[in-house]
Amino acid sequence: MYTIFLEAASRLFTVVDVALDFWKGWSDAMDPGVVVLTESEIRGLTNLNTELVDAVEDGFKVLAAGGVSTPPPMMFTVDSDNEVDVKAAWVRSWGILSIKVATGFFENPALGLPSGNSVLLLLDATTGQTRAVLLEGGYLTTLRAAAAGAIAAKWLAPSGAATVGVIGTGQLARWHARALLLDRELDSVLVYGRNPDRANALIDDLKEHTNARIAHSKSVQEVVEASDIVVTCTSAHEILVRSEWVHPGMHITAAGADATGKQELDPEILYRADRVVCDLRAQALTQGECQHVTDPSMSSDGSWLTELGDVVAGMAPGRIKDDEITVCDLTGVGVQDAAIARYVLGKALGTAPVAAIDPGVRRGVIV
Amino acid sequence: MYTIFLEAASRLFTVVDVALDFWKGWSDAMDPGVVVLTESEIRGLTNLNTELVDAVEDGFKVLAAGGVSTPPPMMFTVDSDNEVDVKAAWVRSWGILSIKVATGFFENPALGLPSGNSVLLLLDATTGQTRAVLLEGGYLTTLRAAAAGAIAAKWLAPSGAATVGVIGTGQLARWHARALLLDRELDSVLVYGRNPDRANALIDDLKEHTNARIAHSKSVQEVVEASDIVVTCTSAHEILVRSEWVHPGMHITAAGADATGKQELDPEILYRADRVVCDLRAQALTQGECQHVTDPSMSSDGSWLTELGDVVAGMAPGRIKDDEITVCDLTGVGVQDAAIARYVLGKALGTAPVAAIDPGVRRGVIV
Repeated sequence: MYTIFLEAASRLFTVVDVALDFWKGWSDAMDPGVVVLTESEIRGLTNLNTELVDAVEDGFKVLAAGGVSTPPPMMFTVDSDNEVDVKAAWVRSWGILSIKVATGFFENPALGLPSGNSVLLLLDATTGQTRAVLLEGGYLTTLRAAAAGAIAAKWLAPSGAATVGVIGTGQLARWHARALLLDRELDSVLVYGRNPDRANALIDDLKEHTNARIAHSKSVQEVVEASDIVVTCTSAHEILVRSEWVHPGMHITAAGADATGKQELDPEILYRADRVVCDLRAQALTQGECQHVTDPSMSSDGSWLTELGDVVAGMAPGRIKDDEITVCDLTGVGVQDAAIARYVLGKALGTAPVAAIDPGVRRGVIV
Repeated sequence: MYTIFLEAASRLFTVVDVALDFWKGWSDAMDPGVVVLTESEIRGLTNLNTELVDAVEDGFKVLAAGGVSTPPPMMFTVDSDNEVDVKAAWVRSWGILSIKVATGFFENPALGLPSGNSVLLLLDATTGQTRAVLLEGGYLTTLRAAAAGAIAAKWLAPSGAATVGVIGTGQLARWHARALLLDRELDSVLVYGRNPDRANALIDDLKEHTNARIAHSKSVQEVVEASDIVVTCTSAHEILVRSEWVHPGMHITAAGADATGKQELDPEILYRADRVVCDLRAQALTQGECQHVTDPSMSSDGSWLTELGDVVAGMAPGRIKDDEITVCDLTGVGVQDAAIARYVLGKALGTAPVAAIDPGVRRGVIV
């Protein structure tokens, strides 16, 4: 066995690179080839930061400009309780096709394994050839979801928001909370979860990322009534946040519901809201909170819904007045995967040599 | 950088291994880990042979026993002419989830690249964790398709078939023809393709695999009229094989049509046939030749169709008499991918050491 090191193109890829440059720099480094990155490598390449959030925001901009094709997700269940979810996006101006296979196996924690697992494939949209396999294990999936929450809050939260409320205590809650702490001065963070140990673990984690007071609230009601920004990150299938707790001047990001039957918000909140934003109308109406809208005055095509990309691109208003109620319904869309994969690959190619491995040797990748 | 070699479980995995043994042997070798195999490695591990065909036949048996869940494929187009196609299968008794992303980019040959590309993921159906990434580039996809053709002919072709006709000259035609030559004594092979150079290249290839006379026919009609077994492997969108050329005692495997709008056979052939078999009823009726059936006497639920797995499992008849007309409509189903991936992984784990690579080093895999 022998191992070759190939120097990658030395310049750093940035989020403003255009597609041809992106793949050209790639080809300079090695062609034809597939880069395989493990989760630990990806964690070494990036953390949650404003540059990553901006990269995901770029994805929403391209979506708003009509530059993305997103087929309906392939979703199926295994052993009735476990989920497999395939999301794809073709981003024309980037020349990229992303396809992500994510699984949720909810008995895994009892085996000492995480519930979620995920593989993200990046293909060249000009030739269909595989360029990268990101064995990201759910890390990038959670990061790109949290980035969307940060983008929603950037455009929809009231100015001077002082209190953030977090409903849920899992990985999604952790990263959404961290994303809301980026570049934001807060007085307090309120956390609610049914399991006190998990809530305390989340609080301990967040303490490393903010100087704000962090408290474990007694109830969802307490969190919602006291917060300017609330993010819901549970796997609930029924209403957690009641409309009577929602007050003018607040923003809610509903991040948990991403499949048929899931729900965290009273639909009445959507009826009352001054503005309901979503990541992708077609998904929000079938998989998000918006699936539960039955008010006959709201058209079934979702024309009452604003897409986040349109807000980001300046094609639709975000928050206009401080006393508005705004909601963002997030289900997770393919362009977020394409955007974060492109960002991580830019890091991988731009910052370090890439080792090319003799194809005659079988490889096991310890992830 | 350092490289570790881990000895895989020393025994050879065979196609009769049960799921628990399969993954257990895996875990003995390395756990948790992901094996990444390139196309060249996979080509080194297996060729088209009867053991591989038997492995795919095992997949059809499990399908017939109700042991496989197959969600509808995710199919979308890129730049109007190029296809992306995601097929999944959950094989309960094997404990395996397979997900395959295949692309067809038809301008690639002008760039010196193959049209087809494919990545096959194998996941543990108990935990959803990724076990293997097969960067098979379309090789296994073509092999498992050709294996299905061999299985169809095994159960449906007339005894003593002496002449095989091949319509089409691409990779699919090449491997279907080779699969029909396995374990079969023939007098002649007839090839028809519009491009004489490609037809001659196919003939030269096949000469290395049979002593039968091989000829380039002038027309589809000549091939069909003279053959006992015909396989159609084109990307046609209209009738190539006319009903008046079809004679009693012949078998046709229609392998080209695998998407809406594609067609190679006159539907009249399906009406006349004594038995129409398909790989998966739901797919044949929407993507295969069966999508063109409009005869009002044939029910729209496809109850007139027999699934190949049912024939293989002895639950439905194959050919009963030598003068019957039989047709097999193949669209390619997820369980074929699961079966061939399991077979190749058994080879990889059973026959050679597996190299585990330091996760701290980024890898480029030259495919």
